[in-house]
Amino acid sequence: MSTIDTRLIDGKQHAAALTARVSAEVAQLDREQGQVPGLAVVLVGTDAASEVYVRNKTRQTSSVGMRSFAHTLPADTSEAELLALVARLNADPDVHGILVQLPLPPSIDSTLVLDAIDPAKDVDGLGQVNVGRVTLGHPALVPCTPLGCLLLLEAELGSLSGLHAVVVGRSNLVGRPMSQLLLNADCTVTTAHIHTVDTAAHARRADILVVATGRPGLVRGDWIKPGATVIDVGITRIPTGSGKTKLVGDVVFEEALGVAGRITPVPGGVGPMTIACLLSNTLHAARRQWAGRNTGRAA
Amino acid sequence: MSTIDTRLIDGKQHAAALTARVSAEVAQLDREQGQVPGLAVVLVGTDAASEVYVRNKTRQTSSVGMRSFAHTLPADTSEAELLALVARLNADPDVHGILVQLPLPPSIDSTLVLDAIDPAKDVDGLGQVNVGRVTLGHPALVPCTPLGCLLLLEAELGSLSGLHAVVVGRSNLVGRPMSQLLLNADCTVTTAHIHTVDTAAHARRADILVVATGRPGLVRGDWIKPGATVIDVGITRIPTGSGKTKLVGDVVFEEALGVAGRITPVPGGVGPMTIACLLSNTLHAARRQWAGRNTGRAA
Ligand SMILES: NC(=O)c1ccc[n+]([C@@H]2O[C@H](COP(=O)([O-])OP(=O)(O)OC[C@H]3O[C@@H](n4cnc5c(N)ncnc54)[C@H](OP(=O)(O)O)[C@@H]3O)[C@@H](O)[C@H]2O)c1
Ligand SMILES: NC(=O)c1ccc[n+]([C@@H]2O[C@H](COP(=O)([O-])OP(=O)(O)OC[C@H]3O[C@@H](n4cnc5c(N)ncnc54)[C@H](OP(=O)(O)O)[C@@H]3O)[C@@H](O)[C@H]2O)c1
Repeated sequence: MSTIDTRLIDGKQHAAALTARVSAEVAQLDREQGQVPGLAVVLVGTDAASEVYVRNKTRQTSSVGMRSFAHTLPADTSEAELLALVARLNADPDVHGILVQLPLPPSIDSTLVLDAIDPAKDVDGLGQVNVGRVTLGHPALVPCTPLGCLLLLEAELGSLSGLHAVVVGRSNLVGRPMSQLLLNADCTVTTAHIHTVDTAAHARRADILVVATGRPGLVRGDWIKPGATVIDVGITRIPTGSGKTKLVGDVVFEEALGVAGRITPVPGGVGPMTIACLLSNTLHAARRQWAGRNTGRAA
Repeated sequence: MSTIDTRLIDGKQHAAALTARVSAEVAQLDREQGQVPGLAVVLVGTDAASEVYVRNKTRQTSSVGMRSFAHTLPADTSEAELLALVARLNADPDVHGILVQLPLPPSIDSTLVLDAIDPAKDVDGLGQVNVGRVTLGHPALVPCTPLGCLLLLEAELGSLSGLHAVVVGRSNLVGRPMSQLLLNADCTVTTAHIHTVDTAAHARRADILVVATGRPGLVRGDWIKPGATVIDVGITRIPTGSGKTKLVGDVVFEEALGVAGRITPVPGGVGPMTIACLLSNTLHAARRQWAGRNTGRAA
């Protein structure tokens, strides 16, 4: 039955290329202007997964030649203390990007904290101003994971104009900004979620199927239109038979092979692009701030 | 062939009911607290259509007992002068809502002006902060026309959860916020536009079809799924044979009769809801400002 030779989208390779470009630009800025971008990462508490993410981010930031500022605060940090730190980072001219690692402890209002980050330094793109700018189709700092997906799609397919994209998932972190970016790229966009009736039927019409639900095995082979491009954002750690664990996406990968035209594997697909986009966003934010365009409207 | 008894959605009646509710609340606030909401409308230049809109808005504002402040500026007003007026209105405690009538003269950057309005007073909901809040699913001041469409849909259909909504058009004024509001109401949402391939096929799958293109006659009877609810936002003035003109929507109304389950006529459908929603937004904004919630996060 497998008639299509499904192409794997190599996220590691795309991410390495993007990271290399960022690295080269940072080196050039350092040589020519004697200044480098700086990224501050704030972690509250001791969530094990968050600690791994933050370590990866700070390590990669340094490895492209940027300055990295890690702020690790105890789990009982108050909202006021965190807001005070954000205010200091907003005012710090060596800091061009600020990332507050989510989730925050339940005693802290995440929305309040994300909106307190200077929009010019909001390299995660989760504050209301950047979200508004993306929705309006204005220049903005764009959330890293959907930005990574868009870059993969454009690298693979060229212009996306007129393609029908179906996005399964509508979180503020992935699904919603993904739908916005695809609409801005002139796709016809359908957004599906938990209340969608017959998600499979919608998925089957997609030229581009982006799945971001965190539900392993949700998307079966027969949900995919033959030849479609599938972006599997899901990452879930599941036990294997042998007492070990492995990472899986939301798509039944083996069933997608032979049906999809292209697909991102998990791991090695979307994942690596996220940090590469964070570095790219930080470089972008620094350039704007140096150009004196950090206040007012996005350039 | 006409098998369905299409119900007309009476926008005038819905709008009158909403306006009456606003009016009663304003009277109560005046009685109990001795204060009434105030709406400032700013018009730059002498565009004939804009003058009519502004006159209607100020008249209706007064008629529900609110204070109305009209600011009419000459067409050669500079961006700086307009921004200075917006700043004065932002600071004026008697003004709870600020509406800058679009379009502005080409010498003025509309985005800059809309973003300069205090988000707490942005009753048109077109500034980046309110747009971001809507996209994030947070409380916000919502653009009046799509809000009016949502209220009509909810009044007619009750819960919209799980319905498939297709929105044709993606302007920042109507199409995009409409798609966001329908997604927030748990519809599965497809957004179509000029680059969409076979818009008719998408439309035909819609339980709710919202059309906002300004292209009279675009939507034919066979674009409509039998029984679907059709919201025709389009308003275009076209010549009739007899040297006169009339207003038409984007849907071929006679063809939709007998196919659609419900439809908004043009005129008398969506149109009347827009000003009613502006009044409702102004009341809402004033209540929040009196409650001291005008700064920081939306309540
Ligand atoms: N770097 C990366 O690669 C990266 C980054 C971020 C996230 N992720 C992964 O991506 C996945 C999604 O992350 P997230 O933050 O968006 O998750 P989330 O906040 O839990 O959102 C999941 C979304 O999927 C929808 N959904 C859940 N079950 C569904 C079903 N059966 N059918 C249709 N829709 C369904 C939900 O709908 P409702 O809104 O209606 O509840 C929700 O909108 C997770 O596996 C996460 O680990 C990966
Ligand atoms: N109170 C009211 O009732 C009220 C308020 C506001 C507007 N309106 C009316 O609503 C209509 C739309 O207003 P607007 O401000 O949104 O207009 P707009 O800014 O011109 O946007 C029109 C949208 O329709 C899309 N479009 C145009 N032709 C199309 C086609 N053949 N197929 C598919 N999509 C097409 C465009 O796509 P692209 O983005 O790809 O170009 C665009 O997104 C107008 O008639 C206006 O008068 C009524």
